[in-house]
Amino acid sequence: MRIARFEAGGRVSYGLVEGDSVTPVEGDLFGSRRPAGDPVPLSSVRLLAPVVPRLMLATALNYPSHLGQNVASPRPELFVKGNNCLSNPGDPIVMPAGCERVDYEGELVVVIGRRCSRVSVEDALSYVLGYTCGNDVSARDWQRGDQQWFRGKSSDTFGPLGPWIVDGLDPTNLELRTRLNGKEVQHCNTGEMINSVAEQISFVSRVVALEPGDVIFTGTSGQPQALKPGDVVEVEVEGVGVLSNPVVADSKPMPWKDLRPDLRPPRPGR
Amino acid sequence: MRIARFEAGGRVSYGLVEGDSVTPVEGDLFGSRRPAGDPVPLSSVRLLAPVVPRLMLATALNYPSHLGQNVASPRPELFVKGNNCLSNPGDPIVMPAGCERVDYEGELVVVIGRRCSRVSVEDALSYVLGYTCGNDVSARDWQRGDQQWFRGKSSDTFGPLGPWIVDGLDPTNLELRTRLNGKEVQHCNTGEMINSVAEQISFVSRVVALEPGDVIFTGTSGQPQALKPGDVVEVEVEGVGVLSNPVVADSKPMPWKDLRPDLRPPRPGR
Repeated sequence: MRIARFEAGGRVSYGLVEGDSVTPVEGDLFGSRRPAGDPVPLSSVRLLAPVVPRLMLATALNYPSHLGQNVASPRPELFVKGNNCLSNPGDPIVMPAGCERVDYEGELVVVIGRRCSRVSVEDALSYVLGYTCGNDVSARDWQRGDQQWFRGKSSDTFGPLGPWIVDGLDPTNLELRTRLNGKEVQHCNTGEMINSVAEQISFVSRVVALEPGDVIFTGTSGQPQALKPGDVVEVEVEGVGVLSNPVVADSKPMPWKDLRPDLRPPRPGR
Repeated sequence: MRIARFEAGGRVSYGLVEGDSVTPVEGDLFGSRRPAGDPVPLSSVRLLAPVVPRLMLATALNYPSHLGQNVASPRPELFVKGNNCLSNPGDPIVMPAGCERVDYEGELVVVIGRRCSRVSVEDALSYVLGYTCGNDVSARDWQRGDQQWFRGKSSDTFGPLGPWIVDGLDPTNLELRTRLNGKEVQHCNTGEMINSVAEQISFVSRVVALEPGDVIFTGTSGQPQALKPGDVVEVEVEGVGVLSNPVVADSKPMPWKDLRPDLRPPRPGR
């Protein structure tokens, strides 16, 4: 089953995708749903992020190929992506002014289907609604220079999600690919994860009662490259589909000038 | 004006507080509001967090007395608090199992009233709805031991907010006090902030279009102490009121056992 959220004629609906058409549904996305109209061609609607999460989490350093100088962690290393950065398929990734390097990070994203508190690793996957593609866009210089990753990971447009949610997949064995302007730049299998999807859900559920619609970006592989305006990034998860987003420059730059230069830390070597 | 959110008879409403009573309002909290009923005694309702933010941010290291070994930053150092941790006046702060030290952090919290993108420091305060009290509850060992502060700052119940929002205050000159079991343990003036409320809003607005209801916890002072079950923490902001929360132990402990001890980093000295 492929669950999409879309806008058509000014109205936002959930729908079930079959072939090249989508049938609107009403009811509870996480409970009983029923068709609420005739199928319409996918080409006639605008796909939106398939869910509006209450909580958007992401796991850092979760593929051996992405570790670099870091040591693998015996527990998932999570951070919060602000809900402001949720973005739709096709919507532009805006490179903020004052940031020198913005990278793509293609990821498998898990969508929670049922309230989920203190579940074991063994039971965790039974709380999943399905899976989608995500791009954990990352401003590297801010990620390195700031105390925490707020600007680095949660600037507006840094959380594209989609194109839809697919259920019934095995998250331990999915091919995950990213293409930059058509050229493959990331390729792994989700079985390479250091902490599995089930381990991530179980770990989070110890301190957070997860709600239906909450999502976890489950980590990226390899060494992602920098984006530039004009690029197009595609994230493809086997069995789900392709999430595609163009990259644009900031059209209204307002870089931060350090307001209190008297407080600027001394630079090394001076 | 004091704006509260409350539950009475199973119904959640916004209301305006005067003296010891609250008058329900209907309409847009951030636009035109009108009374929608008779005043009811505050003692007959249950106060809730006065707003349900789309985005909950917090500023680290923003009072000289809280810096410790850290250097003051020439820009606000922000992090995201997950929406899951939003908590109500009077609701218990739960000390998670497996965490050895949980601290209070009494803070002034600013509530955004109008959409706010790329605003200057000079204009920033015109986008404010008002102010409330917040407790940026912090699990110190997780904050230190994890890559990012997700568990340290966003475990469930770690974001009490309230008791209501007050407008018309000067955020550069408010007394801010925290009491632990009735004894004052934090006391500062918000004029001591390293980066002011206006600077924080302007800085965030460069990368996030803030929405009505978004909040920023603006930092804590001094060296907070550890909480223990049975404690009561009160945060008081001059001109706002008192946010009070009891502390309880985790009633259903499910500590994380490192699932993959083979991946545990070697300890120093071994």
